[in-house]
Amino acid sequence: MARVTLLTDFGTADGYAAAMAGVIAAAAPSARVETASHDIAPGDIFGAALALSRYASLYPPGTVHVVVVDPGVGTDRRAIAATVDERHYVAPDNGVLTFVLRDAGRARLVGLDAPARGPAGAVSATFHGRDVFAPAAGRLARGDPLEALGDAVHAPVLLALPEPGRGVAGIEGEIIGVDRFGNLITNIPGEWAGAGSWVRVRGQGVGPLRRTYGDVEPGELVALIGSLGWIEVSVRNGNAADRLEAGRGARVTVREGNRR
Amino acid sequence: MARVTLLTDFGTADGYAAAMAGVIAAAAPSARVETASHDIAPGDIFGAALALSRYASLYPPGTVHVVVVDPGVGTDRRAIAATVDERHYVAPDNGVLTFVLRDAGRARLVGLDAPARGPAGAVSATFHGRDVFAPAAGRLARGDPLEALGDAVHAPVLLALPEPGRGVAGIEGEIIGVDRFGNLITNIPGEWAGAGSWVRVRGQGVGPLRRTYGDVEPGELVALIGSLGWIEVSVRNGNAADRLEAGRGARVTVREGNRR
Amino acid sequence: MARVTLLTDFGTADGYAAAMAGVIAAAAPSARVETASHDIAPGDIFGAALALSRYASLYPPGTVHVVVVDPGVGTDRRAIAATVDERHYVAPDNGVLTFVLRDAGRARLVGLDAPARGPAGAVSATFHGRDVFAPAAGRLARGDPLEALGDAVHAPVLLALPEPGRGVAGIEGEIIGVDRFGNLITNIPGEWAGAGSWVRVRGQGVGPLRRTYGDVEPGELVALIGSLGWIEVSVRNGNAADRLEAGRGARVTVREGNRR
Repeated sequence: MARVTLLTDFGTADGYAAAMAGVIAAAAPSARVETASHDIAPGDIFGAALALSRYASLYPPGTVHVVVVDPGVGTDRRAIAATVDERHYVAPDNGVLTFVLRDAGRARLVGLDAPARGPAGAVSATFHGRDVFAPAAGRLARGDPLEALGDAVHAPVLLALPEPGRGVAGIEGEIIGVDRFGNLITNIPGEWAGAGSWVRVRGQGVGPLRRTYGDVEPGELVALIGSLGWIEVSVRNGNAADRLEAGRGARVTVREGNRR
Repeated sequence: MARVTLLTDFGTADGYAAAMAGVIAAAAPSARVETASHDIAPGDIFGAALALSRYASLYPPGTVHVVVVDPGVGTDRRAIAATVDERHYVAPDNGVLTFVLRDAGRARLVGLDAPARGPAGAVSATFHGRDVFAPAAGRLARGDPLEALGDAVHAPVLLALPEPGRGVAGIEGEIIGVDRFGNLITNIPGEWAGAGSWVRVRGQGVGPLRRTYGDVEPGELVALIGSLGWIEVSVRNGNAADRLEAGRGARVTVREGNRR
Repeated sequence: MARVTLLTDFGTADGYAAAMAGVIAAAAPSARVETASHDIAPGDIFGAALALSRYASLYPPGTVHVVVVDPGVGTDRRAIAATVDERHYVAPDNGVLTFVLRDAGRARLVGLDAPARGPAGAVSATFHGRDVFAPAAGRLARGDPLEALGDAVHAPVLLALPEPGRGVAGIEGEIIGVDRFGNLITNIPGEWAGAGSWVRVRGQGVGPLRRTYGDVEPGELVALIGSLGWIEVSVRNGNAADRLEAGRGARVTVREGNRR
């Protein structure tokens, strides 16, 4: 009884997401198909990669994680499947697996052969979620070995992640994600900064690094170490992205001690 | 172990969708209840019918597909259940099953008797998803035969689908759907048009019929045969509905060869 | 084989909701994890409580309902688990269980001990959905007794619900919820008002209490008894919240008979 999770930018209202789930169910009737999300912004590969990194390793071994955020469908981008730390992945080779592969000890990767025929007849040129990725996920969920899906491949596409740095003025980094609550996720590891380090976003002072939301009053800005271990900037019971007019790519600085 | 899919316009935030899922789970504890979508636009029967057509037959035989987009709740519209090609359907008789029934070889239909008592007490006049459709789906998921749910009925409501035509100037059709990516789905079958046929939407030139997105540059318009076999108009990595200011009902023309 | 439902304000696009589902799946591999909703408005405790009341008791006994709408994460608010009428609940102690507890005969409650270590390492200060609530739900889904999760607690937080009243001019109440369709849900029990009672919202006449939508023409206002037993105000095939510019807290009056 395998679990399969789906992460796409399809929304649900058009029936594309259900088409994928149906194909998997038909291939592996005992599989549990769960929605991770169908609400990734259209074509947002980095957002999908970041979301995937938040849950992939928490699922039990054997889980099949399918990611179809695929602006390159209909080009010659590869389709791949991978096994990393006992979880399986099926995705276009466009960087959506960046965090999973970067943090992995051993990864096995194969290229997915385009099937001769899709679940609905001819393989479409536009809907590989249904015609390529879901059939592959169904085979893994049914217990087929990874190597049965295609030949080994190497050098998967990895997104160039912005790296934080240490300068004379302190740590410099940037916002890499904005979540539904308007929390700003930086690329600065929490362990880089001591308690009391002073955080700025786009030149605007946020305050010292604190432990949790309750350390400030409702409505106030707060910097803390988020659930992935990176420094985050929030407004308690509010929206920091709106308050600071900041989004992905905004510059963040952290100065040690009380040097503001 | 039956699978049940839900397609509604309820959203999820009000708890109505979960109420349906709970009723089905209570009636058929081993059933898998999966969300196809709860994001159909309120009352959009045609949109639900089109979405359903994208996944219904891909699920394995025995699946119970529940569709509750029901602006006529509280009127004398019928509630029906159907078995088509080994899948079951439960829905208001308002046209949401149009594509499923139109394409079907044999369909068996029954009218759903209004139950004397709903899962939460008296049968409400406003929430037949919980009180009529979910209990019927639960019975089918539990293995009750279709005929146990009510008497046979005939002449289900079918939506009048706009049909494409061939005129002296070429093929004339219209947009019948716009998906999350802004792709424009026409009612013109791909096999009607040869490669190179020239496509226009609302009088605006799109270009020749191509095979896939990769045949144009990012940001360019492209006409191709979509995953349901109809001609679609897209912007590669963009939104054709916005670009062409076109929605459902917009006129589409296709001229053979290079006659623009 | 336990069922677990999730109700949060996380959305799905950030991967937080899937992180919870993954933790539960890892703790209780045979559990079915179903989404009730991840679309509660951020921090809307009352909205979550109302949504939960619509489905909680419809699920079969043994179901574990998890509710994480938790603007107080990172403060000293308690985390609790409860067993009410054979269903289990895991939630912050902030009022999200108000309707469930208010209507319950017997409720057993325990406080959740903060675990020493979360599924992803150290327990975060910001994501108790993953690090506190999901592990507790996993234990209940696996069959652990409620009392194994923590010590008994009492006096859970209950929201102060606005109560309707009877005055010389009739019944006075207010809008407590607006659903996706723009239906206005009042706090006035249907049995308080006889057929024909005259309903007003914000001083604007709606009309007499009727049985169902079909009793008025499309586009017209209608007052009726909704699926939870309270009086609701709708526009047939339209949006009453928009029409009456009314939301939560708006005043509602009901006068007996034909006294308008």
